[in-house]
Amino acid sequence: MHGYAVDKQDHLRRLRRIEGQVRGLQRMVEEDKYCIDVLTQVSAATSALRSFALSLLQQHLAHCVAEAATKGSAEADAKVKEATDAIARLVRS
Amino acid sequence: MHGYAVDKQDHLRRLRRIEGQVRGLQRMVEEDKYCIDVLTQVSAATSALRSFALSLLQQHLAHCVAEAATKGSAEADAKVKEATDAIARLVRS
Amino acid sequence: MHGYAVDKQDHLRRLRRIEGQVRGLQRMVEEDKYCIDVLTQVSAATSALRSFALSLLQQHLAHCVAEAATKGSAEADAKVKEATDAIARLVRS
Amino acid sequence: MHGYAVDKQDHLRRLRRIEGQVRGLQRMVEEDKYCIDVLTQVSAATSALRSFALSLLQQHLAHCVAEAATKGSAEADAKVKEATDAIARLVRS
Repeated sequence: MHGYAVDKQDHLRRLRRIEGQVRGLQRMVEEDKYCIDVLTQVSAATSALRSFALSLLQQHLAHCVAEAATKGSAEADAKVKEATDAIARLVRS
Repeated sequence: MHGYAVDKQDHLRRLRRIEGQVRGLQRMVEEDKYCIDVLTQVSAATSALRSFALSLLQQHLAHCVAEAATKGSAEADAKVKEATDAIARLVRS
Repeated sequence: MHGYAVDKQDHLRRLRRIEGQVRGLQRMVEEDKYCIDVLTQVSAATSALRSFALSLLQQHLAHCVAEAATKGSAEADAKVKEATDAIARLVRS
Repeated sequence: MHGYAVDKQDHLRRLRRIEGQVRGLQRMVEEDKYCIDVLTQVSAATSALRSFALSLLQQHLAHCVAEAATKGSAEADAKVKEATDAIARLVRS
């Protein structure tokens, strides 16, 4: 079981809310809403995805990475490298 | 009719694909997929939202802002300020 | 003269302040300051660079892009495409 | 000695290069270079700051956070929370 499983319900709630935001965006486009208002909603959805990612990352660091650290520094280094690469993708997305 | 209406079908296609990505994320969490793989998918969905926003913004600048510019510099300045504020929200989200 | 020339002194002031922040970062690293404090300063410098870019962009849109719009839609489209590409690079940096 | 001390020379080299980029930006503004070219250089400097931050973060996770993990989960959790907050500031900057 991965670290985030304990917060599964919270994660699913966040993702369902984000799905609702993306569906709301489709409605806005269907109804020809003003571009700037659509963009504001895109920023809100992006921000919610970011918060979800950060919450997932925190649990990953607290569980998988911290656990690897207790098994030795080679395992910890590999996990840290993997996590940093994921953070890099996130920062640049 | 706002500038983006002409590309409405393209916008809706992109948003439906993003909705699919967010639903895919829910499946991954349900199935306890590895956190790093979930984070990679979050980055992909964020990146798709960014591309959608940039496409919307380009049309907004080409239609609404350019049109305002032909009506005089006060109108153009107001539209440019509004667009820049939207870009700032986007950059920081 | 480009649009931003009128605000040249403000731009230079901002950039000198950012240069000072980057020099402050070097001092922090020299003095082995705690990583998290260094990261906080990196975020502050990044944020200042973003604000500078947004201020420059606003003037570019208000001057170059708006001016192109008064010359016809082909010129406006080329300028808008160029500005959107710059915004895309900014968003992903 | 913090984790990043071992790579101090690499960090300082990166920061000096970023300082050079910010100074180059001042020259571009002094010489009234085209806004889009200035923006491209801002993106390059921002990207270099990001890379520096990620390199610092990786060392922090590999040293401070991993070390805390070997001392017990309360210490690890506090360090992970602190690192996640720093990542959040970074992502939003």
